[in-house]
Amino acid sequence: MSETPGRVALVGWHEGLAGLVHAWLDQPVSHFVHPSDEAPAVDPVAARAGRAASRFDIPQAGRFKGLPLVSSANWPAILRTEGICRALVLLADGQDRLDQIALARAAGIELIGARHASATILPDAIIGDNVVLHARSLIGYRAEIRAGVIINSGAQIDHHSVIEEGVTIDPGAILAGNVHVGRCARIHTGAIIINRLSIGEGAVIGAGAVVIRDVPPGTTVAGNPARPIMRNPNTRC
Amino acid sequence: MSETPGRVALVGWHEGLAGLVHAWLDQPVSHFVHPSDEAPAVDPVAARAGRAASRFDIPQAGRFKGLPLVSSANWPAILRTEGICRALVLLADGQDRLDQIALARAAGIELIGARHASATILPDAIIGDNVVLHARSLIGYRAEIRAGVIINSGAQIDHHSVIEEGVTIDPGAILAGNVHVGRCARIHTGAIIINRLSIGEGAVIGAGAVVIRDVPPGTTVAGNPARPIMRNPNTRC
Amino acid sequence: MSETPGRVALVGWHEGLAGLVHAWLDQPVSHFVHPSDEAPAVDPVAARAGRAASRFDIPQAGRFKGLPLVSSANWPAILRTEGICRALVLLADGQDRLDQIALARAAGIELIGARHASATILPDAIIGDNVVLHARSLIGYRAEIRAGVIINSGAQIDHHSVIEEGVTIDPGAILAGNVHVGRCARIHTGAIIINRLSIGEGAVIGAGAVVIRDVPPGTTVAGNPARPIMRNPNTRC
Repeated sequence: MSETPGRVALVGWHEGLAGLVHAWLDQPVSHFVHPSDEAPAVDPVAARAGRAASRFDIPQAGRFKGLPLVSSANWPAILRTEGICRALVLLADGQDRLDQIALARAAGIELIGARHASATILPDAIIGDNVVLHARSLIGYRAEIRAGVIINSGAQIDHHSVIEEGVTIDPGAILAGNVHVGRCARIHTGAIIINRLSIGEGAVIGAGAVVIRDVPPGTTVAGNPARPIMRNPNTRC
Repeated sequence: MSETPGRVALVGWHEGLAGLVHAWLDQPVSHFVHPSDEAPAVDPVAARAGRAASRFDIPQAGRFKGLPLVSSANWPAILRTEGICRALVLLADGQDRLDQIALARAAGIELIGARHASATILPDAIIGDNVVLHARSLIGYRAEIRAGVIINSGAQIDHHSVIEEGVTIDPGAILAGNVHVGRCARIHTGAIIINRLSIGEGAVIGAGAVVIRDVPPGTTVAGNPARPIMRNPNTRC
Repeated sequence: MSETPGRVALVGWHEGLAGLVHAWLDQPVSHFVHPSDEAPAVDPVAARAGRAASRFDIPQAGRFKGLPLVSSANWPAILRTEGICRALVLLADGQDRLDQIALARAAGIELIGARHASATILPDAIIGDNVVLHARSLIGYRAEIRAGVIINSGAQIDHHSVIEEGVTIDPGAILAGNVHVGRCARIHTGAIIINRLSIGEGAVIGAGAVVIRDVPPGTTVAGNPARPIMRNPNTRC
């Protein structure tokens, strides 16, 4: 089958990730992907429990949001047979994203990025593959965002900051200038990091934490000012 | 008198609410309304005390910002005799807003919304009547904003969040995905609410509070992490 | 030499200040200025130590970012001989900015402002000379921003707030309505100030501080809620 470069597969099927990006992506999405040989079994009642929103999609009968949902650990090969050679990996866990990105690259799948029209990128920023810039995110002058990073809505990364692969930054987080965030770290909602700090690989910054000192790898901090509350024993980063 | 659908009355006359929206509303405002039979008696000296701004309007001699100020508990009937059949209620208290919205609806007054040009609304959001989206506010994918809600400048409501009637959200507050905010709750400046939480009816979230657990109805929380500091005895919600 | 009004000199040469504004300023920059008779001696190795960003400019051999760097305490006179009569002072310290602004004014140098295209200014705001509005900053209705103020990325100043000369506001700070900030005060990253408060001259608001009471002049506050942690003994404001 001939390739249709325009069409894109989204790897993931959660409403706040793949579902959300699908709603505004400026490229035609043809498939969703569940990167496992076991199809997702989502109980519609349990999935909606505790949710107030009236509209919430879940995968059903091999489809998600009206499109085919491919369930396979070997999804890149399946996409290629469908003539799809572009994908965007939208899994919640940073290491999961990097694993699937590596798989896609090995299979010759091109990884695209997603940038909402309301995101702002300042001059000389460097943006890697498979980076998602959600609505109203802000990337500063000469900031560097590596592959597989998700910058959520309203989060801002100021000048000369470097965000390594697989990092996830939640809504409204604020990183001042010259901040370095290590691989697969996670910055939760509304956290604040002052300038020139280093956040280690796999570190977790709690929601609303005010970080005024470096954070060692694999450490969880929270509070104002942020203090270590946990060493993360099982981090894969 | 024949109706002029284009003209709008703003219910309220405070500078940071009705005065502010008047400054950028993209519809022609013909009247302000004080929803009481007693005209407001504002002492110009006291009103400006402690304010540094050089320009600050107050109602004087039945006018506000150069327009007639109607003082009547039965303002919808008066507007109808003036040929005005559209209004926007801009009172600071959520229950006061809902009371006047109900009065307007009963009188056949259409309630309009106000959306600043710099606000961002993501796909599939549902926005009710008499909702104000101030400058740089952000409404997420499939978020639902009910009637009479005010979302202040720079505040962001992420995907699938539901904001019930009469809620007031102050500048810069950040609500992550799948948050439910009950009727007439108030979220103060810069508060942060993580995903999937429920904020009860009439709850008050203090400025800068970092909310990481559900908040019961009628409860005030503050701090990082947010903790209850008060039960609100007189809430009308 | 005849004057070329279009060309501008930037006073300062730090990457996060003059370098950053140079990257997006919508006016032609012809010179950078180091306002001292002693040329800056920056060790390239030391300057880059601890920085993760791959691109970082420093002054070398009398040039910065490909343009001449004038080193002189009497820089306005030198600029005039070069036919430059417009400048923007971008020094980190507020009082240093005001000192150089005064020098420039005395020499008949016009001080320009810098407003990033993504900044939002609401109606009836008053913006002084030499004010920098960084990306995504927000200036509210009838807010007043005096000369020499820097409003960093994503910071928001709400309605009727007054920011006096030489104030510096860091990224993501949120000032609600009717706030008064005294001369040369500094508001650090992500700080929150509720409405109607007064921040004294030379006060310092720590990163992420949640300010719910007035702050006296020359006082440093931090925390949630913000509490005084220091009197600033050497403030020049």
